[in-house]
Amino acid sequence: MSQQILPAALTALIDELGRLPGVGARTAERYAYFLLRNDVRTAERLAERIATVHAGVTQCPVTFALIDQDQTVSPLYDDPSRDKELVAVVEEPLDIVALERTGQFHGTYHVLGGAISPIDGIGPEQLHIPELVERIRRDHVKELIIATNASVEGESTALFLQKYLQDADVTVSLSRLARGIPVGVDLEYADQITLSHALEGRRSLTP
Amino acid sequence: MSQQILPAALTALIDELGRLPGVGARTAERYAYFLLRNDVRTAERLAERIATVHAGVTQCPVTFALIDQDQTVSPLYDDPSRDKELVAVVEEPLDIVALERTGQFHGTYHVLGGAISPIDGIGPEQLHIPELVERIRRDHVKELIIATNASVEGESTALFLQKYLQDADVTVSLSRLARGIPVGVDLEYADQITLSHALEGRRSLTP
Repeated sequence: MSQQILPAALTALIDELGRLPGVGARTAERYAYFLLRNDVRTAERLAERIATVHAGVTQCPVTFALIDQDQTVSPLYDDPSRDKELVAVVEEPLDIVALERTGQFHGTYHVLGGAISPIDGIGPEQLHIPELVERIRRDHVKELIIATNASVEGESTALFLQKYLQDADVTVSLSRLARGIPVGVDLEYADQITLSHALEGRRSLTP
Repeated sequence: MSQQILPAALTALIDELGRLPGVGARTAERYAYFLLRNDVRTAERLAERIATVHAGVTQCPVTFALIDQDQTVSPLYDDPSRDKELVAVVEEPLDIVALERTGQFHGTYHVLGGAISPIDGIGPEQLHIPELVERIRRDHVKELIIATNASVEGESTALFLQKYLQDADVTVSLSRLARGIPVGVDLEYADQITLSHALEGRRSLTP
């Protein structure tokens, strides 16, 4: 319907913006109108950065994190102050950003490139699991923190990984991120599975 | 912080996407990663449309709606089936899309180009009000529906417009969009101002 009401160039832009994840028609309209109302340079700068992002980014061949095109390995992996014997296994490159924001982790990362999800046709063979095993052996990794998402797919991937490492006869200490009540959430609003995890993983206050 | 963790090209894109209205850091990251993960063509197409939207869109000199660069006047205004004597006055071009979606309005539109907002430095002189008066006279407009937003600014603009038309000695029937309880909203959740409007504007059911 908006096809006839709005100019063709604006409609085309709205359609394209509507492909972004979680962006509906109204939001796409708002973004497009913002770009149109602002000066041409704002739009041009965004266009330029979208057009060049693919050429500027590549994948670290060791950790599968995203790196600059001219880097050979992830700077976090390369950093001598980071502990190579402690590896956090994450699903996606952006999960690294989330963990780094805590400022609490001083190991290195390994990006699986997704999670096992039969519905989306993603099996373990699409994930960077053999490379992880190789890396555990080469870097003498002592502890692996499985930091996959708290979803069905994340759980399946964690279980698969655990079994895979056993079968590959790799000895490494395995852990999983704690489950519990997120900060700032009232008990009455926590779902029962989270609450079960919180009970199960309760921490003793008596020394 | 993400400056060091993510590649420069990706960080630059995230920063730029974060300028879009209502887009925070997490959302910008999600959009950027989506564009990076998808094929280059998706990114290039979006970049192209962002870069060309300014050149493809102009303003209708009569209604101030957005039109194609090669159109001389808004197609809605030009359409002989639309009633030129009935005009809906809106703040922004996208408000036209919202009203057109109802399929209930067969008049024409006039875009003010904003609402009076002293805090943002927008006074009546920045709005297309003199052009509206001129148009009322030329097109013999009989009814004006003031369809500004239900905000303080929208209300002020409606009041100003009413007074301005009186002072300009323009005789036109004025109306304002109805206030009341939106469809699907429970009475207990409606705020008191909306509820006051709903009481005041109650409609008789007895003939």
